Amino acid sequence: MGKNLDMVIELLKEKGADFFLMHSGNANFFYATKFRSSSAMFYLLGVDGTELLLLPEMELNRALRESKVKEISSYEMLGYEEKLKELKNSREVILEILIEILNEGRAKKVLIPNDFPSFFGFALKEEFDVETVENPFLKMRAVKTTSEISEIRMSCERVVAVFSETLKLIKSRSLTCEEIRSFIELELLKLGLIAEDTICVSGKLSADPHEVGRGEVEDHLLIDVFPRSRNGYYADFTRTVILKDNLRLKEMLFAVVEAQKKAISMLREGVNGREVHEAVKDTLKSYGFETKKGEGFIHSTGHGIGLEVHEEPKIGDLDVALKGGMVVTIEPGLYYRDVGGVRVEDVVLIKKDGCEILTPFERSLVL
Amino acid sequence: MGKNLDMVIELLKEKGADFFLMHSGNANFFYATKFRSSSAMFYLLGVDGTELLLLPEMELNRALRESKVKEISSYEMLGYEEKLKELKNSREVILEILIEILNEGRAKKVLIPNDFPSFFGFALKEEFDVETVENPFLKMRAVKTTSEISEIRMSCERVVAVFSETLKLIKSRSLTCEEIRSFIELELLKLGLIAEDTICVSGKLSADPHEVGRGEVEDHLLIDVFPRSRNGYYADFTRTVILKDNLRLKEMLFAVVEAQKKAISMLREGVNGREVHEAVKDTLKSYGFETKKGEGFIHSTGHGIGLEVHEEPKIGDLDVALKGGMVVTIEPGLYYRDVGGVRVEDVVLIKKDGCEILTPFERSLVL
Repeated sequence: MGKNLDMVIELLKEKGADFFLMHSGNANFFYATKFRSSSAMFYLLGVDGTELLLLPEMELNRALRESKVKEISSYEMLGYEEKLKELKNSREVILEILIEILNEGRAKKVLIPNDFPSFFGFALKEEFDVETVENPFLKMRAVKTTSEISEIRMSCERVVAVFSETLKLIKSRSLTCEEIRSFIELELLKLGLIAEDTICVSGKLSADPHEVGRGEVEDHLLIDVFPRSRNGYYADFTRTVILKDNLRLKEMLFAVVEAQKKAISMLREGVNGREVHEAVKDTLKSYGFETKKGEGFIHSTGHGIGLEVHEEPKIGDLDVALKGGMVVTIEPGLYYRDVGGVRVEDVVLIKKDGCEILTPFERSLVL
Repeated sequence: MGKNLDMVIELLKEKGADFFLMHSGNANFFYATKFRSSSAMFYLLGVDGTELLLLPEMELNRALRESKVKEISSYEMLGYEEKLKELKNSREVILEILIEILNEGRAKKVLIPNDFPSFFGFALKEEFDVETVENPFLKMRAVKTTSEISEIRMSCERVVAVFSETLKLIKSRSLTCEEIRSFIELELLKLGLIAEDTICVSGKLSADPHEVGRGEVEDHLLIDVFPRSRNGYYADFTRTVILKDNLRLKEMLFAVVEAQKKAISMLREGVNGREVHEAVKDTLKSYGFETKKGEGFIHSTGHGIGLEVHEEPKIGDLDVALKGGMVVTIEPGLYYRDVGGVRVEDVVLIKKDGCEILTPFERSLVL
């Protein structure tokens, strides 16, 4: 974590700030603290490198075992119970404790992430110079460590294995979308992966990229699986299976696969994600597929994946320099109301001179 | 939802505000909109009852099918793409769209929930009078509708059924904490319930209430299961099983069961939750169990349960009037470093003249 903290400290210096203050309930917090709890917690990093994890007393011993943060205090150690008798509101008490800690650290300027709760943000702004910033841990998380890559690789291998079994099942008998979804999620859990809202959608409903699907399987099936391991690392994998002869769907799938191949062929350190997205758009257009009025290629090309299923970098309309160690999805799709949607998605590890597909599996699935 | 909106409108009138503005990514948002997505969305309610759900174009058709909100717009309908070319930052574009909408509605004062992201909170505060409030939907959610009670009841019945099978398994053979957890989570998923971080902990590690547990089962086992249904409604159920003769653990379990019985006997509409918590503390003390320095009864007595595993009302040190239709947990526990922890937890529906236990199951489990 040493190197990572340096990056936040650099941001503090650049902004002339004394502290970075983050709240719990998000992947950045876990990344910074290596501690998970449903309790309300705060993480404070000083420009001098001092660190503090602040949490309820009943989490203290577990945090001392699990967390990597140098100093850990409980609200109770800082007068929570006496303050609660007076203020009668837990949030007000925690605010008072935060202000005391920041005053003790002689804080003048404090950085908070964009998603910091406004209750605390507004109140701290009355006491200190407070500025919202994009959470610096977001940027750090975009480039994965070796152990993170192993975690994601494992999730990806398991997803592919389960999808392979699912495909055999689909070939062998007729099931509803709900039955296929249940099969997938149960098989994933047997391998230690937790999946929710697995997309298994057929027919025209699939024209909405996030529709999970229901009922009988029609002419094609779009399956998008994005489970996470017990350690919290996601995979994200989509295949479209054409079950009945439908020329339009076949043409859409062909174009999407070609666009995905084109995008993946471009991936390496230093490439601009926006250019990858442009190439996908151009490829789909070259096969005659237009995008307008909520139809066509209506989402971005991909996104980082890790502790969140969607994280940095976004591969879309904005410039972003891809770096070795980033793990992203490449998922072109085409969606038309009169026929439905088609999408193909792989997880790809970006390397210095190219990339590695972490979810290798046949893309043109026409049964 | 009509009645619910009235409650928010009343708050707006009371505060002299024109709009309540909420962001996505939390249970209140789903409760208000009946729409789930990982996309960044906003919900706006005017004092005149106008409602707006704001989301990305690719969610629009699904939202039109699924959401109950009267008006639904996409960012793209409001100039997202042109603005992005200029501002080069998605968050800045969404902010500009929000400001335009509020100006169009002649907003002067806007209420936002305490957890509203500070980036948007700070920026809106420069344009309008902005005040943070406890999200009014939190209070509404505390009293469940008939269909919500059915959902929770179903989750509870399934948890009890799986626990019953788990107990048979534990009696029949020796398994590790991890194996028992896997069994529970797989059986729950077979019944359509998604569980994570199921606590299955033994020995001294159980002195930390949120330790999930690992390794061999020692003299006792604390199992705390809190899965949710596909519709998003939680159950929360804990039993402590004493496996080897240990007088101290038996005495702790006896006291905890008595404290739980006492608390449940008090539950009915109009009772003060703080008094229930006091009664639990008194009962445990009367059996000689002291609380100090992070040992003893170190958490509150219970919490509401619904779309979140912890929601309103909290049954602890602060006053709270219990109402019919609230669904809460009652979960006294005792934790000592030298022996470990004991907890017993049930989900209880509060009624006018009493209550109903939704997770009925033997409490004194001494094998």
